[in-house]
Amino acid sequence: MKFKEKVSYLECDTCSRRFAPGEVDLTCPDCGPGLGTLTVVYNYDEIGKILTAGTLENRKEFSHWRYLEILPVSARPEKLHPRVGWTPLYRLPALGRRLGVENLWIKDDGVNPSASFKDRASSVGVARAIEEGRSVITAASTGNAASSVALFAACAGLRAVIFVPETAPEAKVAQLLMFGAEVLSVRGTYDQAFDLCLQTALDRGWYCRNTAVNPYLGEGKKTAALEICEQLGFDPPDRVFVSVGDGCIIGGLWKGFCDFKKLGLIDRLPRLYGIQAGGSAPLVRAFEKGEKTATPLIEAKTCADSICVGQPRDHIKALRAVYESQGAMLAVEDDEILEAMRRLAREAGVFAEPAGATGFAGLCRLASQGEIGPGERVVVLVTGNGLKDVQTAISAVDRKPVPVDANIQAVKSVLK
Amino acid sequence: MKFKEKVSYLECDTCSRRFAPGEVDLTCPDCGPGLGTLTVVYNYDEIGKILTAGTLENRKEFSHWRYLEILPVSARPEKLHPRVGWTPLYRLPALGRRLGVENLWIKDDGVNPSASFKDRASSVGVARAIEEGRSVITAASTGNAASSVALFAACAGLRAVIFVPETAPEAKVAQLLMFGAEVLSVRGTYDQAFDLCLQTALDRGWYCRNTAVNPYLGEGKKTAALEICEQLGFDPPDRVFVSVGDGCIIGGLWKGFCDFKKLGLIDRLPRLYGIQAGGSAPLVRAFEKGEKTATPLIEAKTCADSICVGQPRDHIKALRAVYESQGAMLAVEDDEILEAMRRLAREAGVFAEPAGATGFAGLCRLASQGEIGPGERVVVLVTGNGLKDVQTAISAVDRKPVPVDANIQAVKSVLK
Repeated sequence: MKFKEKVSYLECDTCSRRFAPGEVDLTCPDCGPGLGTLTVVYNYDEIGKILTAGTLENRKEFSHWRYLEILPVSARPEKLHPRVGWTPLYRLPALGRRLGVENLWIKDDGVNPSASFKDRASSVGVARAIEEGRSVITAASTGNAASSVALFAACAGLRAVIFVPETAPEAKVAQLLMFGAEVLSVRGTYDQAFDLCLQTALDRGWYCRNTAVNPYLGEGKKTAALEICEQLGFDPPDRVFVSVGDGCIIGGLWKGFCDFKKLGLIDRLPRLYGIQAGGSAPLVRAFEKGEKTATPLIEAKTCADSICVGQPRDHIKALRAVYESQGAMLAVEDDEILEAMRRLAREAGVFAEPAGATGFAGLCRLASQGEIGPGERVVVLVTGNGLKDVQTAISAVDRKPVPVDANIQAVKSVLK
Repeated sequence: MKFKEKVSYLECDTCSRRFAPGEVDLTCPDCGPGLGTLTVVYNYDEIGKILTAGTLENRKEFSHWRYLEILPVSARPEKLHPRVGWTPLYRLPALGRRLGVENLWIKDDGVNPSASFKDRASSVGVARAIEEGRSVITAASTGNAASSVALFAACAGLRAVIFVPETAPEAKVAQLLMFGAEVLSVRGTYDQAFDLCLQTALDRGWYCRNTAVNPYLGEGKKTAALEICEQLGFDPPDRVFVSVGDGCIIGGLWKGFCDFKKLGLIDRLPRLYGIQAGGSAPLVRAFEKGEKTATPLIEAKTCADSICVGQPRDHIKALRAVYESQGAMLAVEDDEILEAMRRLAREAGVFAEPAGATGFAGLCRLASQGEIGPGERVVVLVTGNGLKDVQTAISAVDRKPVPVDANIQAVKSVLK
């Protein structure tokens, strides 16, 4: 099916105005970027005839492109990086028992090509840029989205111009320079980098891979939810935990679960838990007040740089995800995040970056409060690899190497 | 099949003395660790009845444990990390054309759980330690094998004691501390750390996951060759390029191709090319002189820390692999390695650590000399993720971020 046959319309998240596919590029012109984010609505009846449990079972495509019918592109571009998504879902009975969560799975999205969840969105963004005939793609990012779009743009032969805040970790910047992107290091916050990127994109007609303002990115992010359903035999979990910064991932996950329900592939929906760092928790504040939008913070501060966001750009979708699913937004402290990193590494064999471990920190908090029922099935999403931010990993380790001279007596004297 | 039914005997690489499975732990007692490395010989007739293209096609096990019949353990231990191997093999026609190598594939082993090829060996090593009832596993490593065994030991509940040279990159040490290993940082070279580890293992009865001296590690490493064959429809490539430090990986690959040929799964063998860094090339020197063993260097020096090895411990198997396969050992300079990193990132979307890109640097060298025939099918193995050594990646990038003030005029003035 072609893009315009698949997508019925895009709907404004605030005023519900509908747009034909291709009619607008980014947000609702009436409501603007802050409130006018759009939701992509598909022709579910037609798609549901093709995309069934039976057809999926026989697919040899082990990437998120296995869900092509429900993705907003006509075809998978040939020049795109061949691997994205279809990440492993680990069953962890021993760790689960220690937490009192008998049925625990961890979905490891650090396995993606640029080592973060963002590859799901970038691959779809670059695919749309190609279909629209654009030759430059731009993004603002704390780092992960940047290196991700740089990778996919490089493979596809697009020029990538990336805006990062000057505080972005060295490893992430090195990665995107390796991928050949042009990098503007903004003397300011992520929020300022975001605005400058958006303005430049509109000014120059560049394709904008910015979180929240581009409605198709969430369509890439939703594929993690589709995979969770399929990997669990179309029997969705009871709860899903994920870290939240801008709110796009949790919004995308909810869209994925809802799309699969509309297609008849699952018959119920999980409760979604968005976990923020205490020093960067505008969505938790909004949730606790029952509000539909978030008020920006003056300053955001956490060791989890990927979710250090004062002004969550996808606040409407993120809050809707937890309200509609009867989940919650929850804040954890930085030391809980570091402890979650250690436990994930030592008890699950998953080395996560701080933001990648934040969802698990939220589960640990809730489980310790006895909030999870004994039979419940819980999935935690790990959104990025720990090698992306080694400095924080070093601060998280509670032990040091033991220096020893190069002789056996010295070794014997330090070993217990 | 049980371990002792699968394995017929182990044979000394120097004196050809045979040992029953379980008779010796490490090397041939007559020839010692330097020359007495052992080769595992299976009961190919019986295994060949079970392990066929037909049975493999229907396997749902998407890890290297899909080859359990030809791995030296009775069963896959339950507590082991669930994912290792079955890494992607990317076809890269555009990059291939630019190199004059029409049929080019890259196998990305940076995707493994600890982000390097070494997970193949560690998973088998830990599995053997469990079958032998050991509770402590020890290793010496420049970093990758260390973090890898730390990960697999953590998941399996074994104590891991790791010897690293004090020069090991911070990222790699942080990773293994995160996995809960005890780390001895030896004030000396990798070669000294290796000897101390081996001595300690023998002294204390610890399971030794040291390159070359443990015959079962190469059995883990061979699985990359098995996967290459299966992923290419059992039509093996003409040439395979891989970086070489101690020589275990190339030795393992050759064992894998030979095992599959003995099982009748392939009918011919590829030529193997071992690529060393110019400043650390004892195997290249030996190869050029036609020698069967390598003479240790006084000092090894290269930006590719994972293959910075003066005394290659698996020299006999490594040299045998290139002689028997009619391949070669070849040295490249550090600047060719850095250029290979940039090209892999920008033209293949693969961010490799320096040693990970060294095989590709070797292919670039040989292709530029017109050595590769037009129709030849070539596979390059990438052995580790670039995030493992960000400092070298930073030195490899030929561009810098452009600092810019947080206003649109400033942005306009720096953009072309």
